[in-house]
Amino acid sequence: MPVLQTNLAVHPRPKSTKVRPVTEFELIAQLKPGLTTNDFVVVGAGDDCAVLELGSGINQTLLKTDAVVEGIHFTRDTAPERIGNKALGRCLSDIAAMGGRPIAALITLCLPKNYDPDRVFGLYRGMNRLAARYQVAIVGGETTTSPDTFIVSVTLLGSVPSGAAVLRSGARSGDAIFVTGELGGSIEGKHLDFEPRVLEGAWLAQTGLIHAMMDLSDGLAGDLPHLLTASGGLGAELHASAIPLSHAAKVRAKSGDLAKPALASALTDGEDFELLVVVPSRNAVQLLDQWKARFPTTRLSCIGRITEQPGIKLRDARGVRLLAARGYEHFREE
Amino acid sequence: MPVLQTNLAVHPRPKSTKVRPVTEFELIAQLKPGLTTNDFVVVGAGDDCAVLELGSGINQTLLKTDAVVEGIHFTRDTAPERIGNKALGRCLSDIAAMGGRPIAALITLCLPKNYDPDRVFGLYRGMNRLAARYQVAIVGGETTTSPDTFIVSVTLLGSVPSGAAVLRSGARSGDAIFVTGELGGSIEGKHLDFEPRVLEGAWLAQTGLIHAMMDLSDGLAGDLPHLLTASGGLGAELHASAIPLSHAAKVRAKSGDLAKPALASALTDGEDFELLVVVPSRNAVQLLDQWKARFPTTRLSCIGRITEQPGIKLRDARGVRLLAARGYEHFREE
Repeated sequence: MPVLQTNLAVHPRPKSTKVRPVTEFELIAQLKPGLTTNDFVVVGAGDDCAVLELGSGINQTLLKTDAVVEGIHFTRDTAPERIGNKALGRCLSDIAAMGGRPIAALITLCLPKNYDPDRVFGLYRGMNRLAARYQVAIVGGETTTSPDTFIVSVTLLGSVPSGAAVLRSGARSGDAIFVTGELGGSIEGKHLDFEPRVLEGAWLAQTGLIHAMMDLSDGLAGDLPHLLTASGGLGAELHASAIPLSHAAKVRAKSGDLAKPALASALTDGEDFELLVVVPSRNAVQLLDQWKARFPTTRLSCIGRITEQPGIKLRDARGVRLLAARGYEHFREE
Repeated sequence: MPVLQTNLAVHPRPKSTKVRPVTEFELIAQLKPGLTTNDFVVVGAGDDCAVLELGSGINQTLLKTDAVVEGIHFTRDTAPERIGNKALGRCLSDIAAMGGRPIAALITLCLPKNYDPDRVFGLYRGMNRLAARYQVAIVGGETTTSPDTFIVSVTLLGSVPSGAAVLRSGARSGDAIFVTGELGGSIEGKHLDFEPRVLEGAWLAQTGLIHAMMDLSDGLAGDLPHLLTASGGLGAELHASAIPLSHAAKVRAKSGDLAKPALASALTDGEDFELLVVVPSRNAVQLLDQWKARFPTTRLSCIGRITEQPGIKLRDARGVRLLAARGYEHFREE
């Protein structure tokens, strides 16, 4: 079998001129072993959410925090309602990826000194609207000045029946890999206006058919390796033709000679906020049937399978290629 | 009774040249009524922590978030271990102020692009050390880039027996007002190295003698009004000679002709991270006796009483003066 190391990205990111020895992932990897823990912790750092057992016996508590930063996740011109939708929606997506129910949020704002109060009110309109849709309470937060950057950090507490949280670590060789919705091109607008898969995630967990789940925030090719590593160093084989390409990714692919192919977008663009779902292959058809009945307007696509051999392979008409991860990683960005 | 509107601050803060119609408190006041809520919420935004009833029946869950920002809460030269101690300690102080037990923390870092990884490792050393002391698990977080400001945001989840959380809103006319420790001058070092009153707060709540409690982060004169407002628009009369002055405040008061008097420091300096405790006057002596047996090396001082009439009065040898709040308020700062 010919294996070809392929960089799918048509526009490789410009290399930094500075030495940056520690990436975000490396930093976390170095910090993680030293973190304090206690008997309340079921799942600590490293999954979509932390899982805590606070003693109810019935439910466990999910905890997640996430920040959006002006200039990185939105611009000065982004409508504040959309910033609010994105800031809260990202955390909702993580609760969804555990199969949990979101309950309460805290909002931290770092506001530049010359901030416009109307921007904050708009931001809260966006957050309140999304929170109301999922019966999430906003129970406080913190407002502080930032020399010149507008930052919104959200913490979300959720709940899941004890033992029912779907982790990244449950994938097994031979399992089928699914994704919800369509991938790629979220920069066209979805990265702000996406609907977090809260209902879908809770439903998927409740089927009892799922082995592993995570949300896609750094691109399929960037996120899938985390799930494979968490599951004990497995691999995956993806079918290129089965990967659901978003309309935006297809349109962008036709935007000129230098445009990124839609498949590359689907694999490497960040901020899809779809769910990556791993299911025993014997349950795949059953899951698809039930899904279509429950969510008739949202796609659930089987895109490949988990393999014993590490690495992610992409199968298309030309054969099988080994994929290099090209996900979005903050500290590599310029 | 002569009432004199007095600004205790010797160095009034420079007035901003820009119009800033919305302060932090005004912003929050405008946002608060529109926040979403649900049946899990026992106490929403406005107290030291939010209180949630997640269904255990035995315990309620406390939730708090707080951020420290370079240039505001620490400097580029601050030892990172001390930044870590402060960042986590501030949240611990809020859990303490509810009488709660801290359980799990999430850490959000906004790192400038040219950040020094050793600074992050040092920060975590400080946080892990403090977390270990109080059996707090650090269960994850978020790391993102910030154009040029180092920000550490901490979310802390805690637990309190159901119905036992001590709120700001329980003060009644005639109650005695206590503070732990000593006030003022924290800029000399305590604002970084303070020991949050976790043991003391939990113990105070367990006595069952307490009507209301909060932690002092914006100075006694800035924070007490929040407790009085939350308790239905009450007032307070403080005895100047009873207010415990820190060594740092006294030393600073002798630093020159323009130095702030120690009493002014104790009333208006921020970041004491002591507990303000309101107790029925009939329980005051009992509380003091029990405190001395339990915490022999930490002061607990009765500094005045709650009054029916709104406003804070300060009684000293010269008579009684009405205090203007001069607490630390972020958006008024230059």
